[in-house]
Amino acid sequence: MNPTIELMKSHRSIRQFTEQRIPRETLLELIRAGQAAATSSHVQAYSVIHVKNPSNRERIAELAGGQDYIVSCSDFLMFCADMKRPTEASERTGAAVTRGTTEQLLVASVDTALMAQNVALAAESEGLGICYIGGIRNNPEAISDLLRLPKHVYPVFGMCLGYPADEPDIKPRLPVEAILKEDVYEDDEAHVAAFDASMQRYYSERKGGNKSSDWSRNLTPLFATKLRPHMRDFLVERGFEMK
Amino acid sequence: MNPTIELMKSHRSIRQFTEQRIPRETLLELIRAGQAAATSSHVQAYSVIHVKNPSNRERIAELAGGQDYIVSCSDFLMFCADMKRPTEASERTGAAVTRGTTEQLLVASVDTALMAQNVALAAESEGLGICYIGGIRNNPEAISDLLRLPKHVYPVFGMCLGYPADEPDIKPRLPVEAILKEDVYEDDEAHVAAFDASMQRYYSERKGGNKSSDWSRNLTPLFATKLRPHMRDFLVERGFEMK
Repeated sequence: MNPTIELMKSHRSIRQFTEQRIPRETLLELIRAGQAAATSSHVQAYSVIHVKNPSNRERIAELAGGQDYIVSCSDFLMFCADMKRPTEASERTGAAVTRGTTEQLLVASVDTALMAQNVALAAESEGLGICYIGGIRNNPEAISDLLRLPKHVYPVFGMCLGYPADEPDIKPRLPVEAILKEDVYEDDEAHVAAFDASMQRYYSERKGGNKSSDWSRNLTPLFATKLRPHMRDFLVERGFEMK
Repeated sequence: MNPTIELMKSHRSIRQFTEQRIPRETLLELIRAGQAAATSSHVQAYSVIHVKNPSNRERIAELAGGQDYIVSCSDFLMFCADMKRPTEASERTGAAVTRGTTEQLLVASVDTALMAQNVALAAESEGLGICYIGGIRNNPEAISDLLRLPKHVYPVFGMCLGYPADEPDIKPRLPVEAILKEDVYEDDEAHVAAFDASMQRYYSERKGGNKSSDWSRNLTPLFATKLRPHMRDFLVERGFEMK
Protein backbone atom coordinates (compact mmCIF):
# COMPACT_ATOMS: atom_id res chain seq x y z
CA MET A 1 0.00 0.00 0.00
CA ASN A 2 1.61 3.26 -1.11
CA PRO A 3 1.33 6.52 0.94
CA THR A 4 -1.44 8.00 -1.26
CA ILE A 5 -3.66 4.96 -0.86
CA GLU A 6 -2.80 4.85 2.85
CA LEU A 7 -3.91 8.49 3.12
CA MET A 8 -7.23 7.68 1.41
CA LYS A 9 -7.87 4.80 3.76
CA SER A 10 -7.26 6.96 6.81
CA HIS A 11 -10.12 9.31 5.86
CA ARG A 12 -12.73 10.19 8.45
CA SER A 13 -14.89 13.28 8.67
CA ILE A 14 -13.45 15.81 11.11
CA ARG A 15 -15.93 17.98 13.01
CA GLN A 16 -13.66 19.39 15.75
CA PHE A 17 -10.89 21.78 14.82
CA THR A 18 -8.09 23.66 16.58
CA GLU A 19 -7.83 27.47 16.47
CA GLN A 20 -5.00 27.28 13.91
CA ARG A 21 -5.84 28.91 10.57
CA ILE A 22 -4.94 27.56 7.13
CA PRO A 23 -2.50 29.86 5.28
CA ARG A 24 -4.03 31.52 2.24
CA GLU A 25 -1.37 30.05 -0.08
CA THR A 26 -2.18 26.53 1.14
CA LEU A 27 -5.85 27.06 0.42
CA LEU A 28 -5.11 28.23 -3.12
CA GLU A 29 -2.88 25.20 -3.60
CA LEU A 30 -5.75 22.91 -2.54
CA ILE A 31 -8.08 24.49 -5.09
CA ARG A 32 -5.45 24.19 -7.83
CA ALA A 33 -5.05 20.52 -6.91
CA GLY A 34 -8.84 20.21 -7.21
CA GLN A 35 -8.82 21.79 -10.63
CA ALA A 36 -6.29 19.22 -11.81
CA ALA A 37 -8.95 16.50 -11.59
CA ALA A 38 -10.52 15.22 -14.80
CA THR A 39 -13.33 17.38 -16.15
CA SER A 40 -15.94 16.39 -18.73
CA SER A 41 -14.87 17.83 -22.13
CA HIS A 42 -12.70 20.35 -20.23
CA VAL A 43 -15.88 22.17 -19.17
CA GLN A 44 -14.71 22.83 -15.56
CA ALA A 45 -18.31 23.33 -14.51
CA TYR A 46 -17.68 24.42 -10.93
CA SER A 47 -17.08 27.42 -8.72
CA VAL A 48 -16.09 27.46 -5.08
CA ILE A 49 -17.28 30.17 -2.71
CA HIS A 50 -14.87 30.77 0.13
CA VAL A 51 -17.22 31.93 2.89
CA LYS A 52 -15.22 34.28 5.10
CA ASN A 53 -17.92 36.58 6.46
CA PRO A 54 -18.56 35.27 10.04
CA SER A 55 -22.27 36.08 10.07
CA ASN A 56 -22.73 34.26 6.77
CA ARG A 57 -21.02 31.24 8.25
CA GLU A 58 -23.34 31.34 11.25
CA ARG A 59 -26.34 31.60 8.97
CA ILE A 60 -25.16 28.67 6.82
CA ALA A 61 -24.55 26.57 9.96
CA GLU A 62 -28.19 27.18 10.96
CA LEU A 63 -29.53 26.56 7.44
CA ALA A 64 -27.60 23.28 7.27
CA GLY A 65 -29.39 22.01 10.37
CA GLY A 66 -27.23 23.39 13.19
CA GLN A 67 -23.78 22.20 12.17
CA ASP A 68 -21.53 24.35 14.38
CA TYR A 69 -18.28 23.20 12.81
CA ILE A 70 -19.19 25.35 9.78
CA VAL A 71 -18.41 28.25 12.13
CA SER A 72 -15.52 26.72 14.10
CA CYS A 73 -13.46 25.28 11.25
CA SER A 74 -10.62 27.34 9.78
CA ASP A 75 -12.19 27.67 6.32
CA PHE A 76 -15.56 26.86 4.85
CA LEU A 77 -15.97 26.28 1.12
CA MET A 78 -19.21 26.02 -0.83
CA PHE A 79 -18.80 23.81 -3.89
CA CYS A 80 -21.14 24.92 -6.66
CA ALA A 81 -22.02 23.28 -9.95
CA ASP A 82 -21.52 26.10 -12.44
CA MET A 83 -23.03 25.91 -15.91
CA LYS A 84 -23.15 29.70 -16.18
CA ARG A 85 -19.46 30.17 -17.02
CA PRO A 86 -19.17 27.57 -19.81
CA THR A 87 -22.54 28.28 -21.45
CA GLU A 88 -21.94 32.03 -21.44
CA ALA A 89 -18.40 31.58 -22.77
CA SER A 90 -19.85 29.50 -25.58
CA GLU A 91 -22.59 32.05 -26.20
CA ARG A 92 -20.04 34.87 -26.51
CA THR A 93 -18.52 33.05 -29.50
CA GLY A 94 -21.87 33.55 -31.23
CA ALA A 95 -23.28 30.06 -30.66
CA ALA A 96 -26.95 29.45 -29.89
CA VAL A 97 -26.79 27.65 -26.58
CA THR A 98 -29.05 25.03 -24.99
CA ARG A 99 -29.39 25.16 -21.22
CA GLY A 100 -31.14 23.20 -18.51
CA THR A 101 -30.75 19.62 -19.73
CA THR A 102 -30.53 16.65 -17.38
CA GLU A 103 -27.17 15.81 -18.97
CA GLN A 104 -25.82 19.25 -18.05
CA LEU A 105 -27.01 18.85 -14.46
CA LEU A 106 -25.14 15.55 -14.25
CA VAL A 107 -21.99 16.87 -15.93
CA ALA A 108 -21.79 19.87 -13.61
CA SER A 109 -22.56 17.86 -10.45
CA VAL A 110 -20.02 15.16 -11.30
CA ASP A 111 -17.36 17.70 -12.32
CA THR A 112 -17.86 19.46 -8.98
CA ALA A 113 -17.56 16.22 -7.03
CA LEU A 114 -14.37 15.07 -8.81
CA MET A 115 -12.80 18.44 -8.14
CA ALA A 116 -13.90 18.49 -4.49
CA GLN A 117 -12.56 15.03 -3.81
CA ASN A 118 -9.12 16.18 -4.95
CA VAL A 119 -9.42 19.21 -2.65
CA ALA A 120 -10.41 16.91 0.25
CA LEU A 121 -7.51 14.56 -0.27
CA ALA A 122 -5.03 17.37 -0.92
CA ALA A 123 -6.14 18.91 2.38
CA GLU A 124 -5.66 15.62 4.19
CA SER A 125 -2.22 15.28 2.59
CA GLU A 126 -1.35 18.61 4.26
CA GLY A 127 -2.43 17.30 7.69
CA LEU A 128 -5.83 19.00 7.58
CA GLY A 129 -9.19 17.43 8.37
CA ILE A 130 -12.31 17.94 6.30
CA CYS A 131 -16.04 17.34 6.49
CA TYR A 132 -18.41 17.44 3.52
CA ILE A 133 -21.65 19.26 4.32
CA GLY A 134 -24.58 17.86 2.30
CA GLY A 135 -26.90 19.55 4.82
CA ILE A 136 -26.60 22.79 2.83
CA ARG A 137 -29.20 21.22 0.52
CA ASN A 138 -31.71 21.53 3.38
CA ASN A 139 -32.09 25.19 2.41
CA PRO A 140 -30.45 25.66 -0.96
CA GLU A 141 -32.50 28.69 -1.91
CA ALA A 142 -31.63 30.75 1.17
CA ILE A 143 -27.98 29.75 0.79
CA SER A 144 -27.94 30.65 -2.90
CA ASP A 145 -29.37 34.06 -2.07
CA LEU A 146 -26.83 34.60 0.72
CA LEU A 147 -23.91 33.84 -1.62
CA ARG A 148 -25.60 35.66 -4.52
CA LEU A 149 -25.42 32.62 -6.77
CA PRO A 150 -26.73 33.48 -10.22
CA LYS A 151 -28.88 31.29 -12.45
CA HIS A 152 -27.20 28.10 -13.75
CA VAL A 153 -25.13 27.80 -10.57
CA TYR A 154 -26.27 25.67 -7.62
CA PRO A 155 -24.62 24.69 -4.31
CA VAL A 156 -23.92 20.92 -4.32
CA PHE A 157 -22.26 20.61 -0.90
CA GLY A 158 -20.07 22.54 1.50
CA MET A 159 -16.76 21.54 3.02
CA CYS A 160 -15.26 22.40 6.42
CA LEU A 161 -11.46 22.46 6.53
CA GLY A 162 -9.11 22.91 9.45
CA TYR A 163 -6.53 21.34 11.73
CA PRO A 164 -8.11 18.32 13.45
CA ALA A 165 -8.78 18.46 17.20
CA ASP A 166 -10.24 14.98 17.21
CA GLU A 167 -9.39 11.57 15.82
CA PRO A 168 -12.66 9.72 15.32
CA ASP A 169 -12.78 6.05 14.33
CA ILE A 170 -12.64 5.20 10.65
CA LYS A 171 -16.11 4.07 9.58
CA PRO A 172 -16.18 0.66 7.90
CA ARG A 173 -17.31 0.28 4.31
CA LEU A 174 -19.28 -2.40 2.49
CA PRO A 175 -17.15 -5.41 1.49
CA VAL A 176 -15.37 -4.76 -1.80
CA GLU A 177 -17.07 -7.90 -3.15
CA ALA A 178 -20.44 -6.13 -2.89
CA ILE A 179 -19.24 -3.07 -4.78
CA LEU A 180 -17.14 -4.63 -7.54
CA LYS A 181 -19.17 -6.89 -9.80
CA GLU A 182 -17.91 -8.94 -12.72
CA ASP A 183 -19.42 -8.28 -16.16
CA VAL A 184 -23.01 -8.07 -14.95
CA TYR A 185 -24.85 -6.63 -11.96
CA GLU A 186 -25.48 -9.27 -9.35
CA ASP A 187 -27.37 -8.92 -6.12
CA ASP A 188 -25.38 -8.46 -2.95
CA GLU A 189 -27.92 -9.12 -0.22
CA ALA A 190 -25.62 -11.63 1.54
CA HIS A 191 -22.81 -9.08 1.65
CA VAL A 192 -25.20 -6.48 3.04
CA ALA A 193 -26.26 -8.87 5.80
CA ALA A 194 -22.62 -9.49 6.74
CA PHE A 195 -21.98 -5.76 6.69
CA ASP A 196 -24.98 -5.10 8.92
CA ALA A 197 -23.50 -7.49 11.47
CA SER A 198 -20.13 -5.73 11.39
CA MET A 199 -21.73 -2.27 11.56
CA GLN A 200 -23.71 -3.39 14.60
CA ARG A 201 -20.42 -4.25 16.31
CA TYR A 202 -18.90 -0.93 15.18
CA TYR A 203 -21.80 1.13 16.54
CA SER A 204 -21.75 -0.69 19.89
CA GLU A 205 -18.00 -0.20 20.36
CA ARG A 206 -17.04 3.10 18.72
CA LYS A 207 -15.41 5.94 20.62
CA GLY A 208 -17.74 8.78 19.69
CA GLY A 209 -20.92 7.52 21.36
CA ASN A 210 -22.28 4.04 20.81
CA LYS A 211 -25.76 2.97 19.79
CA SER A 212 -27.67 -0.12 18.75
CA SER A 213 -28.06 0.04 15.00
CA ASP A 214 -26.66 -1.33 11.78
CA TRP A 215 -26.22 -0.06 8.22
CA SER A 216 -29.70 -0.94 6.95
CA ARG A 217 -31.53 0.43 10.01
CA ASN A 218 -29.39 3.54 9.98
CA LEU A 219 -30.48 4.35 6.42
CA THR A 220 -34.18 4.22 7.22
CA PRO A 221 -34.63 7.91 8.18
CA LEU A 222 -33.13 8.79 4.80
CA PHE A 223 -35.69 6.86 2.81
CA ALA A 224 -38.75 6.66 5.06
CA THR A 225 -39.43 10.33 4.46
CA LYS A 226 -38.97 12.19 1.21
CA LEU A 227 -35.63 13.82 2.02
CA ARG A 228 -35.20 17.33 0.63
CA PRO A 229 -38.37 17.25 -1.48
CA HIS A 230 -37.72 20.85 -2.55
CA MET A 231 -34.64 19.95 -4.62
CA ARG A 232 -36.53 19.49 -7.89
CA ASP A 233 -38.33 22.84 -7.75
CA PHE A 234 -35.21 24.58 -6.48
CA LEU A 235 -33.11 23.34 -9.40
CA VAL A 236 -35.79 24.20 -11.96
CA GLU A 237 -36.05 27.70 -10.56
CA ARG A 238 -32.25 28.06 -10.83
CA GLY A 239 -32.24 27.12 -14.51
CA PHE A 240 -31.51 23.42 -14.16
CA GLU A 241 -34.82 22.34 -15.65
CA MET A 242 -33.79 18.72 -16.20
CA LYS A 243 -35.11 18.82 -19.75
CA MET B 1 4.02 20.89 -2.78
CA ASN B 2 3.75 17.43 -1.22
CA PRO B 3 3.85 14.22 -3.33
CA THR B 4 0.05 13.70 -3.23
CA ILE B 5 -0.64 17.19 -4.59
CA GLU B 6 2.17 16.74 -7.10
CA LEU B 7 0.50 13.52 -8.26
CA MET B 8 -2.85 15.31 -8.69
CA LYS B 9 -1.23 18.06 -10.74
CA SER B 10 0.41 15.56 -13.07
CA HIS B 11 -2.96 14.15 -14.13
CA ARG B 12 -3.74 13.77 -17.82
CA SER B 13 -6.11 11.35 -19.48
CA ILE B 14 -4.27 8.34 -20.87
CA ARG B 15 -5.68 6.73 -24.02
CA GLN B 16 -2.75 4.54 -25.07
CA PHE B 17 -1.74 1.60 -22.94
CA THR B 18 0.93 -1.10 -22.93
CA GLU B 19 0.06 -4.81 -23.01
CA GLN B 20 0.85 -5.17 -19.30
CA ARG B 21 -2.15 -6.23 -17.21
CA ILE B 22 -3.06 -4.87 -13.75
CA PRO B 23 -2.83 -7.56 -11.05
CA ARG B 24 -6.21 -8.49 -9.58
CA GLU B 25 -5.06 -7.60 -6.04
CA THR B 26 -4.05 -4.10 -7.21
CA LEU B 27 -7.46 -3.59 -8.78
CA LEU B 28 -9.21 -4.61 -5.55
CA GLU B 29 -6.96 -2.23 -3.62
CA LEU B 30 -7.97 0.63 -5.93
CA ILE B 31 -11.66 -0.06 -5.32
CA ARG B 32 -11.11 -0.24 -1.56
CA ALA B 33 -9.31 3.12 -1.76
CA GLY B 34 -12.33 4.44 -3.66
CA GLN B 35 -14.68 3.21 -0.98
CA ALA B 36 -12.72 5.11 1.65
CA ALA B 37 -13.94 8.42 0.16
CA ALA B 38 -16.64 10.32 2.00
CA THR B 39 -20.19 9.10 1.31
CA SER B 40 -23.42 10.96 2.00
CA SER B 41 -24.93 9.60 5.25
CA HIS B 42 -22.82 6.44 4.75
CA VAL B 43 -25.17 5.41 1.93
CA GLN B 44 -22.37 4.17 -0.41
CA ALA B 45 -24.68 4.57 -3.39
CA TYR B 46 -22.45 3.03 -6.05
CA SER B 47 -21.51 -0.19 -7.75
CA VAL B 48 -18.66 -0.81 -10.16
CA ILE B 49 -18.96 -3.29 -13.00
CA HIS B 50 -15.61 -4.74 -13.98
CA VAL B 51 -16.17 -5.47 -17.68
CA LYS B 52 -13.99 -8.46 -18.53
CA ASN B 53 -15.90 -10.05 -21.40
CA PRO B 54 -14.01 -8.93 -24.57
CA SER B 55 -17.09 -8.73 -26.79
CA ASN B 56 -18.86 -6.57 -24.20
CA ARG B 57 -15.87 -4.25 -24.17
CA GLU B 58 -15.98 -3.99 -27.95
CA ARG B 59 -19.69 -3.27 -27.82
CA ILE B 60 -19.22 -0.57 -25.15
CA ALA B 61 -16.40 1.02 -27.19
CA GLU B 62 -18.82 1.31 -30.13
CA LEU B 63 -21.71 2.55 -27.99
CA ALA B 64 -19.44 5.21 -26.44
CA GLY B 65 -18.72 6.64 -29.89
CA GLY B 66 -15.80 4.50 -31.09
CA GLN B 67 -13.39 4.82 -28.18
CA ASP B 68 -10.94 1.97 -28.89
CA TYR B 69 -9.02 2.36 -25.63
CA ILE B 70 -12.02 0.80 -23.88
CA VAL B 71 -10.83 -2.41 -25.58
CA SER B 72 -7.07 -1.86 -25.42
CA CYS B 73 -6.72 -0.78 -21.79
CA SER B 74 -5.90 -3.37 -19.15
CA ASP B 75 -9.17 -3.00 -17.24
CA PHE B 76 -12.42 -1.21 -17.92
CA LEU B 77 -14.70 -0.22 -15.05
CA MET B 78 -18.27 1.05 -15.29
CA PHE B 79 -19.12 3.33 -12.35
CA CYS B 80 -22.81 3.12 -11.54
CA ALA B 81 -24.94 5.19 -9.22
CA ASP B 82 -26.74 2.57 -7.14
CA MET B 83 -29.83 3.46 -5.15
CA LYS B 84 -31.08 -0.14 -5.31
CA ARG B 85 -28.83 -1.49 -2.57
CA PRO B 86 -29.51 1.17 0.10
CA THR B 87 -33.24 1.53 -0.55
CA GLU B 88 -33.76 -2.24 -0.53
CA ALA B 89 -31.67 -2.63 2.61
CA SER B 90 -33.84 -0.01 4.25
CA GLU B 91 -37.00 -1.71 2.97
CA ARG B 92 -35.95 -5.05 4.46
CA THR B 93 -36.00 -3.45 7.93
CA GLY B 94 -39.73 -2.91 7.38
CA ALA B 95 -39.57 0.75 6.39
CA ALA B 96 -41.82 2.25 3.71
CA VAL B 97 -39.33 3.68 1.27
CA THR B 98 -39.49 6.67 -1.11
CA ARG B 99 -37.63 6.32 -4.39
CA GLY B 100 -36.88 8.43 -7.43
CA THR B 101 -36.36 11.86 -5.91
CA THR B 102 -34.04 14.45 -7.45
CA GLU B 103 -32.13 14.51 -4.17
CA GLN B 104 -31.47 10.77 -4.44
CA LEU B 105 -30.22 11.15 -8.01
CA LEU B 106 -27.78 13.82 -6.84
CA VAL B 107 -26.64 11.86 -3.78
CA ALA B 108 -25.95 8.73 -5.81
CA SER B 109 -24.22 10.59 -8.66
CA VAL B 110 -22.02 12.59 -6.28
CA ASP B 111 -21.22 9.53 -4.15
CA THR B 112 -20.15 7.68 -7.30
CA ALA B 113 -17.95 10.56 -8.45
CA LEU B 114 -16.18 10.98 -5.08
CA MET B 115 -15.48 7.27 -5.02
CA ALA B 116 -14.25 7.19 -8.63
CA GLN B 117 -11.89 10.11 -8.13
CA ASN B 118 -10.20 8.20 -5.33
CA VAL B 119 -9.91 5.17 -7.63
CA ALA B 120 -8.42 7.38 -10.36
CA LEU B 121 -5.84 8.92 -8.08
CA ALA B 122 -5.03 5.62 -6.37
CA ALA B 123 -4.42 4.15 -9.83
CA GLU B 124 -2.13 7.03 -10.75
CA SER B 125 -0.27 6.60 -7.46
CA GLU B 126 0.48 3.03 -8.60
CA GLY B 127 1.92 4.27 -11.90
CA LEU B 128 -1.22 3.54 -13.90
CA GLY B 129 -2.97 5.87 -16.33
CA ILE B 130 -6.70 6.39 -16.48
CA CYS B 131 -9.33 7.93 -18.70
CA TYR B 132 -12.89 8.73 -17.65
CA ILE B 133 -15.44 7.77 -20.31
CA GLY B 134 -18.50 10.05 -20.21
CA GLY B 135 -19.32 8.84 -23.73
CA ILE B 136 -21.06 5.81 -22.23
CA ARG B 137 -23.99 8.18 -21.68
CA ASN B 138 -24.39 8.32 -25.47
CA ASN B 139 -26.20 4.99 -25.21
CA PRO B 140 -26.97 4.39 -21.56
CA GLU B 141 -29.92 2.09 -22.21
CA ALA B 142 -28.03 -0.38 -24.41
CA ILE B 143 -25.14 -0.34 -21.93
CA SER B 144 -27.45 -0.90 -18.97
CA ASP B 145 -29.00 -3.88 -20.76
CA LEU B 146 -25.59 -5.30 -21.63
CA LEU B 147 -24.45 -5.14 -18.00
CA ARG B 148 -27.91 -6.19 -16.75
CA LEU B 149 -28.24 -3.14 -14.55
CA PRO B 150 -31.46 -3.33 -12.54
CA LYS B 151 -33.83 -0.48 -11.79
CA HIS B 152 -32.43 2.25 -9.50
CA VAL B 153 -28.92 1.74 -10.87
CA TYR B 154 -27.54 3.82 -13.74
CA PRO B 155 -24.11 4.06 -15.42
CA VAL B 156 -22.58 7.49 -14.68
CA PHE B 157 -19.26 7.05 -16.51
CA GLY B 158 -16.69 4.43 -17.36
CA MET B 159 -12.97 4.39 -16.64
CA CYS B 160 -10.11 2.87 -18.63
CA LEU B 161 -7.11 1.79 -16.55
CA GLY B 162 -3.74 0.49 -17.63
CA TYR B 163 -0.03 1.13 -17.89
CA PRO B 164 0.54 4.31 -19.95
CA ALA B 165 2.14 4.03 -23.39
CA ASP B 166 1.94 7.78 -23.93
CA GLU B 167 2.69 10.93 -22.01
CA PRO B 168 0.36 13.63 -23.33
CA ASP B 169 0.69 17.26 -22.28
CA ILE B 170 -1.10 18.36 -19.13
CA LYS B 171 -4.10 20.44 -20.14
CA PRO B 172 -4.22 23.89 -18.52
CA ARG B 173 -7.06 24.85 -16.20
CA LEU B 174 -8.91 28.10 -15.61
CA PRO B 175 -7.02 30.51 -13.31
CA VAL B 176 -7.69 29.70 -9.67
CA GLU B 177 -8.97 33.27 -9.25
CA ALA B 178 -11.90 32.45 -11.56
CA ILE B 179 -12.87 29.34 -9.60
CA LEU B 180 -12.40 30.52 -6.01
CA LYS B 181 -14.66 33.42 -5.13
CA GLU B 182 -14.82 35.33 -1.85
CA ASP B 183 -18.12 35.38 0.03
CA VAL B 184 -20.28 36.02 -3.03
CA TYR B 185 -20.39 34.88 -6.64
CA GLU B 186 -18.69 37.34 -8.91
CA ASP B 187 -18.41 37.23 -12.66
CA ASP B 188 -15.17 35.99 -14.14
CA GLU B 189 -15.39 37.06 -17.78
CA ALA B 190 -11.95 38.71 -17.68
CA HIS B 191 -10.37 35.49 -16.38
CA VAL B 192 -12.13 33.52 -19.10
CA ALA B 193 -10.74 35.88 -21.76
CA ALA B 194 -7.22 35.43 -20.39
CA PHE B 195 -7.75 31.67 -20.29
CA ASP B 196 -8.98 31.64 -23.90
CA ALA B 197 -5.72 33.33 -24.92
CA SER B 198 -3.61 30.77 -23.08
CA MET B 199 -5.68 27.84 -24.43
CA GLN B 200 -5.18 29.17 -27.94
CA ARG B 201 -1.41 28.98 -27.40
CA TYR B 202 -1.77 25.50 -25.88
CA TYR B 203 -3.79 24.16 -28.84
CA SER B 204 -1.35 25.63 -31.37
CA GLU B 205 1.71 24.11 -29.65
CA ARG B 206 0.63 20.85 -28.05
CA LYS B 207 2.23 17.51 -28.88
CA GLY B 208 -0.85 15.46 -29.70
CA GLY B 209 -2.01 17.39 -32.78
CA ASN B 210 -2.49 21.13 -32.82
CA LYS B 211 -5.49 23.16 -33.91
CA SER B 212 -6.75 26.72 -33.87
CA SER B 213 -9.24 26.99 -31.04
CA ASP B 214 -9.63 28.21 -27.50
CA TRP B 215 -11.65 27.19 -24.47
CA SER B 216 -14.84 29.05 -25.34
CA ARG B 217 -14.89 27.96 -28.97
CA ASN B 218 -14.05 24.42 -28.00
CA LEU B 219 -17.14 24.23 -25.78
CA THR B 220 -19.54 25.25 -28.53
CA PRO B 221 -20.33 21.75 -29.89
CA LEU B 222 -21.33 20.79 -26.33
CA PHE B 223 -23.94 23.51 -26.00
CA ALA B 224 -24.96 24.32 -29.58
CA THR B 225 -26.82 21.01 -29.81
CA LYS B 226 -28.80 19.37 -27.06
CA LEU B 227 -26.16 16.88 -25.95
CA ARG B 228 -27.55 13.50 -24.89
CA PRO B 229 -31.20 14.60 -24.95
CA HIS B 230 -32.26 11.05 -24.01
CA MET B 231 -30.82 11.28 -20.48
CA ARG B 232 -34.02 12.49 -18.88
CA ASP B 233 -36.24 9.74 -20.28
CA PHE B 234 -33.55 7.15 -19.69
CA LEU B 235 -33.26 8.04 -16.00
CA VAL B 236 -37.03 8.13 -15.52
CA GLU B 237 -37.35 4.70 -17.11
CA ARG B 238 -34.66 3.39 -14.74
CA GLY B 239 -36.50 4.60 -11.66
CA PHE B 240 -34.75 7.95 -11.20
CA GLU B 241 -37.91 9.96 -11.81
CA MET B 242 -36.47 13.24 -10.45
CA LYS B 243 -39.57 13.77 -8.34
